[in-house]
Amino acid sequence: MSELKITVIGAGSSYTPELIDGFIKNDFAQPIQICLYDIEQGEEKTKIIENFAKRMVNKTKKNINITSDMIIESALENCSFVINQFRVGFLDARIKDEKIPLKYGLIGQETTGAGGFFNAVRTIPEAIRIAQTMEKICPDAWIINFTNPSGIIVEAINRYSNIKCVGLCNVPYNMRIDIAKVLRTDVENVYCEFVGLNHLSFISEVYYMGKPILQSLIDKRVFASQLVKNIPKIEAVSDLIRQLRLIPSPYLQYFYFENEMFGKIKREVESGKGTRGEQVKKVVDELFEIYKDINISEKPSQLDRRGGAYYSTVAIQLIKALCSNTPTLQVINYCNNGAFSELSNKSVVETNCVIDYSGVRSLTYGSLPSQIKGLILQMKDYEKLTIESAVKGSKDLATLALLNNPLIHGYKNAACLINDMLSEYKDFLPRFN
Amino acid sequence: MSELKITVIGAGSSYTPELIDGFIKNDFAQPIQICLYDIEQGEEKTKIIENFAKRMVNKTKKNINITSDMIIESALENCSFVINQFRVGFLDARIKDEKIPLKYGLIGQETTGAGGFFNAVRTIPEAIRIAQTMEKICPDAWIINFTNPSGIIVEAINRYSNIKCVGLCNVPYNMRIDIAKVLRTDVENVYCEFVGLNHLSFISEVYYMGKPILQSLIDKRVFASQLVKNIPKIEAVSDLIRQLRLIPSPYLQYFYFENEMFGKIKREVESGKGTRGEQVKKVVDELFEIYKDINISEKPSQLDRRGGAYYSTVAIQLIKALCSNTPTLQVINYCNNGAFSELSNKSVVETNCVIDYSGVRSLTYGSLPSQIKGLILQMKDYEKLTIESAVKGSKDLATLALLNNPLIHGYKNAACLINDMLSEYKDFLPRFN
Amino acid sequence: MSELKITVIGAGSSYTPELIDGFIKNDFAQPIQICLYDIEQGEEKTKIIENFAKRMVNKTKKNINITSDMIIESALENCSFVINQFRVGFLDARIKDEKIPLKYGLIGQETTGAGGFFNAVRTIPEAIRIAQTMEKICPDAWIINFTNPSGIIVEAINRYSNIKCVGLCNVPYNMRIDIAKVLRTDVENVYCEFVGLNHLSFISEVYYMGKPILQSLIDKRVFASQLVKNIPKIEAVSDLIRQLRLIPSPYLQYFYFENEMFGKIKREVESGKGTRGEQVKKVVDELFEIYKDINISEKPSQLDRRGGAYYSTVAIQLIKALCSNTPTLQVINYCNNGAFSELSNKSVVETNCVIDYSGVRSLTYGSLPSQIKGLILQMKDYEKLTIESAVKGSKDLATLALLNNPLIHGYKNAACLINDMLSEYKDFLPRFN
Amino acid sequence: MSELKITVIGAGSSYTPELIDGFIKNDFAQPIQICLYDIEQGEEKTKIIENFAKRMVNKTKKNINITSDMIIESALENCSFVINQFRVGFLDARIKDEKIPLKYGLIGQETTGAGGFFNAVRTIPEAIRIAQTMEKICPDAWIINFTNPSGIIVEAINRYSNIKCVGLCNVPYNMRIDIAKVLRTDVENVYCEFVGLNHLSFISEVYYMGKPILQSLIDKRVFASQLVKNIPKIEAVSDLIRQLRLIPSPYLQYFYFENEMFGKIKREVESGKGTRGEQVKKVVDELFEIYKDINISEKPSQLDRRGGAYYSTVAIQLIKALCSNTPTLQVINYCNNGAFSELSNKSVVETNCVIDYSGVRSLTYGSLPSQIKGLILQMKDYEKLTIESAVKGSKDLATLALLNNPLIHGYKNAACLINDMLSEYKDFLPRFN
Repeated sequence: MSELKITVIGAGSSYTPELIDGFIKNDFAQPIQICLYDIEQGEEKTKIIENFAKRMVNKTKKNINITSDMIIESALENCSFVINQFRVGFLDARIKDEKIPLKYGLIGQETTGAGGFFNAVRTIPEAIRIAQTMEKICPDAWIINFTNPSGIIVEAINRYSNIKCVGLCNVPYNMRIDIAKVLRTDVENVYCEFVGLNHLSFISEVYYMGKPILQSLIDKRVFASQLVKNIPKIEAVSDLIRQLRLIPSPYLQYFYFENEMFGKIKREVESGKGTRGEQVKKVVDELFEIYKDINISEKPSQLDRRGGAYYSTVAIQLIKALCSNTPTLQVINYCNNGAFSELSNKSVVETNCVIDYSGVRSLTYGSLPSQIKGLILQMKDYEKLTIESAVKGSKDLATLALLNNPLIHGYKNAACLINDMLSEYKDFLPRFN
Repeated sequence: MSELKITVIGAGSSYTPELIDGFIKNDFAQPIQICLYDIEQGEEKTKIIENFAKRMVNKTKKNINITSDMIIESALENCSFVINQFRVGFLDARIKDEKIPLKYGLIGQETTGAGGFFNAVRTIPEAIRIAQTMEKICPDAWIINFTNPSGIIVEAINRYSNIKCVGLCNVPYNMRIDIAKVLRTDVENVYCEFVGLNHLSFISEVYYMGKPILQSLIDKRVFASQLVKNIPKIEAVSDLIRQLRLIPSPYLQYFYFENEMFGKIKREVESGKGTRGEQVKKVVDELFEIYKDINISEKPSQLDRRGGAYYSTVAIQLIKALCSNTPTLQVINYCNNGAFSELSNKSVVETNCVIDYSGVRSLTYGSLPSQIKGLILQMKDYEKLTIESAVKGSKDLATLALLNNPLIHGYKNAACLINDMLSEYKDFLPRFN
Repeated sequence: MSELKITVIGAGSSYTPELIDGFIKNDFAQPIQICLYDIEQGEEKTKIIENFAKRMVNKTKKNINITSDMIIESALENCSFVINQFRVGFLDARIKDEKIPLKYGLIGQETTGAGGFFNAVRTIPEAIRIAQTMEKICPDAWIINFTNPSGIIVEAINRYSNIKCVGLCNVPYNMRIDIAKVLRTDVENVYCEFVGLNHLSFISEVYYMGKPILQSLIDKRVFASQLVKNIPKIEAVSDLIRQLRLIPSPYLQYFYFENEMFGKIKREVESGKGTRGEQVKKVVDELFEIYKDINISEKPSQLDRRGGAYYSTVAIQLIKALCSNTPTLQVINYCNNGAFSELSNKSVVETNCVIDYSGVRSLTYGSLPSQIKGLILQMKDYEKLTIESAVKGSKDLATLALLNNPLIHGYKNAACLINDMLSEYKDFLPRFN
Repeated sequence: MSELKITVIGAGSSYTPELIDGFIKNDFAQPIQICLYDIEQGEEKTKIIENFAKRMVNKTKKNINITSDMIIESALENCSFVINQFRVGFLDARIKDEKIPLKYGLIGQETTGAGGFFNAVRTIPEAIRIAQTMEKICPDAWIINFTNPSGIIVEAINRYSNIKCVGLCNVPYNMRIDIAKVLRTDVENVYCEFVGLNHLSFISEVYYMGKPILQSLIDKRVFASQLVKNIPKIEAVSDLIRQLRLIPSPYLQYFYFENEMFGKIKREVESGKGTRGEQVKKVVDELFEIYKDINISEKPSQLDRRGGAYYSTVAIQLIKALCSNTPTLQVINYCNNGAFSELSNKSVVETNCVIDYSGVRSLTYGSLPSQIKGLILQMKDYEKLTIESAVKGSKDLATLALLNNPLIHGYKNAACLINDMLSEYKDFLPRFN
């Protein structure tokens, strides 16, 4: 049976062993090749990962072939899936993404607010470039995108290439797991209906064994503690859920509890703990020390501190579904195509889809709930203007994008943030010259 | 484990043994009760069916309990599924539905054109009445509707009750089977994407083992012979398919080949063969002679001549799916809810859905193909006006409905047909007085 | 004050003196140049018209300069308005448009059904060519289009050029005049709200001195006789209006009373009276005899028999409005832009607009009435497919267009009509080779 | 000729003489009755106004009859226009509206942000009550609404009554005047295309003598100083306009320059100058001293300091247009009805309309500009949730409303503001108990 080749873009990431672990723990009908690719600056780390991954595989009898390739064209050749997990500018850029907004009293976070905007503008042209390369070399392959901000990146790829692309995020799966824990049941018994955009989605119904139970969960106020790791807990969230009649993604706290979240970030930075990126950087350094150790051939427990729980679970579920004749329901980032009535067919949304070897189809949802419609529509406009700005290198469009982001607060901040962006990330933004 | 009660409305139909046969041939986790209900005029036939069905079951070891109940309220009590297969006015009304339009040179058919309109106007109030009774007695039960014209009946039930209702038709499944035969493969390897309304739907893509192959089938001109039984074959249909780039349901021949279809019906009537209803009546009489024979306890082969191949297959697939935690894809008549961009969320359409124990969700499709959009939109308007006319007993709305049906051809025919309807079906149309 | 140049395309038409007469009878702030243009085959008639027009003007003291120019580029130079009134293939082609459909038992008419389709397919490329020439020579000029089928031609120009274009038709104004006559009042006191497409529009409300009165007119059954000249009268139309609660354009009789209209046309042809085109041809020949007579310098009364009453009235009202700072309400064919909710923004519709020197804006109407929505949407699809077919020279698209026209009746007629078209109008359809 | 009766609700306002002055300065075909109505607490001021108004009229020969009536039913009898200019809770409530938000670092303003929300929630039930009274007494009369927040009040009236209602605001007219000043021309030569909602609208094109000139105005940077009185000037506004390619209403500064506007308000309060409401209160007291003076019979110049320039101009233009057979273009708050593609037909928007004695019709605009679409859609959701909350007296809906207002900043502020609202305006909010 022919080999299934999976190419990992940004393979020098400390996450890669998590992915390898997932392939080891799952059974595939076909032999697997995992091809590791990174740019020159990531080559050294990729080599470390490659050797570690080979050790991981060798301990098992799995038919998994680890390769690496530093030339994008040959890395893509014959591949069926491309996993995007690169970060333009690596962790140093992320740390800037987090710190610049703090100067203006704004949330500094890698996917949300000004930081997410910086990240998006740097990443969009690169993501499109890879997809356009795929058009020539592996036009039928799927992109499975983890690169943040994932929803925006997927929409950019869809708008500027013909490559099939699915955005993945571990948040929806984590929310489902958390609800299963509350219900003391297996995750398979829980089905959550999602509505919204990546890092801006809500659960609008929970089915337990086929029965809708969200209202009863709300009535029992079980949500005081239900929130994914890494995101601070806010007391009033339980009241908010009762009033929304929806369970917001933890990232919604940046919108509904902006002051509190800003305070928390500020305190961590001032106390010397550093931004999340700075904290991650330390963990990553430790991880690479472990990966280098030729005596170690198992995914280290420290990797869990890195965040991104269930990252490989969702990736492998998706790849298996796309190879299978049995339809599976998953929550992914994909073309709206009518799922939510108020969004255009081409808008990328985070939504329930049915997946099998004939592809991905989003399920119909109907109208967006009125209590969140405005936020979702405005953020989608922000996303579209961000993509257009990044592609055209337009400062004016960048300003209009930021004016549509509720975490920016006004024209002056927008103007300052864009000036900072152009000076701080100059090398990554050639289109803006 | 608790019993699953299925109530059959219109149980005196000669089809019922087909349904019983389906329950016998499939395995269910729960014990089954099939409760047979019909109105007074159908009581005698229901008794014959009941006894025959009991003989069928007794030959097996299946845990199926056949009951009958002539009081609607107790028939509905504790039931989980209601199968609608009644016909208001029985076959005599069908024969009128077929004959009246012929007077005006129009297609006479039980689901399409003027005949389908007569059928709908008689049936809609009764279907709504049953659903509204269910609201009081079994509000969580599903209606599985076979009563024709199925799409209109489902939309009427949705608009005037809160009961969950799915419309079934054996045509999409038959088309899929026919394509599987062309491909010489099992039906499970074929997935067809449908677009349109009941008896007005098209296959817009065929997937074989996950790969889209419609264009290659068209290029090979394999469709010259691919058409469901009972519907006459037209030579030019293969050209039509090539130009539409869609495979029309056999019922679309009434629209695209109206003259030819009219000629065929006319010849059959003039030759003494009779309308389809008259032919069916003879088969039904023969069938009931068999059903009465206490020595017979197996579904007779003559039942296949009755039409409606795979009728029980699709019904039982659906019931099993609605009881299962594994999602299944089926083509049913259900709320659009965004599946087709140009139709309102509440419009009932024939479309691909994913089904499990948490319910039914239609898959997104996007925009209707421009070559069929106008026909579909106009027929949906016809359907809505028909429902409104039947509910209100409005002759004016009935006229407006018929003016929107492309098989009526003008105001004078509409006016004559409505006059005939009011005199010929007087007893069934109390709301029009 | 600078001269206002108006270029007439198809100036050899017998209608031109009607237009000249309109310019004479109205006052303009600026001096007027009317530049007559026609293709080579129309040159002789244009010369006759030019001389007659000069005599007409000379009898007055009006500042109107009649010129002619047989080179399109110089004819368009410096012009502010282009009046399209050309017919591809002249009256001979019209007569074919009327006769070919009769072979298949179908309506033969120059703007509707198969005849209108033939006319559209011939005309669309020519209309686009003129508009694209204007883009280079007079990009700010308006096209005022009378060339039939007017709505389709305007949409084709909008889709394939950036020239501002308004479609005019005398039917809405005639309907308003007829209603004013019924009310025994001046036309200025009557305002009619239109909904639909060109030759497929309805009056949905009539305001008399600011008060809505349609329902009271319907109650009084005043519409038995209210129909524009040249269109036969049908008895049942008064019932139809009562049930529609809308006044259909006379052209809607081809849809609602197809059999009766076909019978009338058939009888006229069989009786030797000829098609409308043949009748017109005789009138035109008489008219040109008069135009040649150097002793005559007034619009002859015979011109009224030609049809097209108020043709110059609506043209001059529009030109004056587009030069004025006072807003005027007129019914024209223009981009929908949201006027009717169910049609796309770019679809050309026949609707109420407000016009002044800053341009044309359609008034919002809201949802299409459900009793006519299906017909309008299907005909708009027919129109779009017709345009696409004509531009691409695609026989397949032509078939799909005809399948969407309710006056064609099936695939076989569509196939035959297209074969006839390709042989009968071969010289005018180079794109189909 | 019959008398035209205009009933003023909230006649005790210091603005009323401005309105009277407008009626005096304009000519009407009919004799005018202006009926002054206020609630009991406004009776004394109304009497002062009534006497002053009578003196104003007596100095002229105008056929204007000033009356007063403290019973709403008789005040409404036979009236053709109702002018809403009442304020629930008078200026004291306004001052609270301005001060409460300041506690939380939020903009305190009577129409925008939390203050506008308080005002809306108090006012909506009263506005609906008046409209529902009109349904019984003067069902054909128009409401001309000045009561703030005007757009929300008009939408509430539309949703909960059948009375025709137009919202007026002097801002669009002032913006047009300001542009005319920039162009050194008469206001009649300037036509502005508006897009958006009340106090949230933008000019998307300016026509001077029929020619679009916005881009050239932007290129000349003429907007640095162009802003209506009472709204502070921000330097960067000229950059903002260049990037938006739209001229925002002065009220948009609260959104684009929130920090700067908050600082300005804060400074005025801290310096002892007081909120705008406190400043107005002083002016009003002075004005009533003047109104009481029986020797004075002319509108005092101090009234201009009150704000609301051209208030009577727009009111009288509208009333005259609704009585006239000549269509006029005005910018008003009215049902969207398709004017802006992304808003529902029933949403009230600030838009260009054509008005005559047959009523009001909004002009089609097309899609909302992407740079402002998100803000407009979210604010419209805020408005709808506000109306629903006020009508139902729902604290939960009030929270959801505030979460959709970009000037509230998070759940905690929303919760605190609603608690304050319920205690501070207790007497005006009986539905919340």
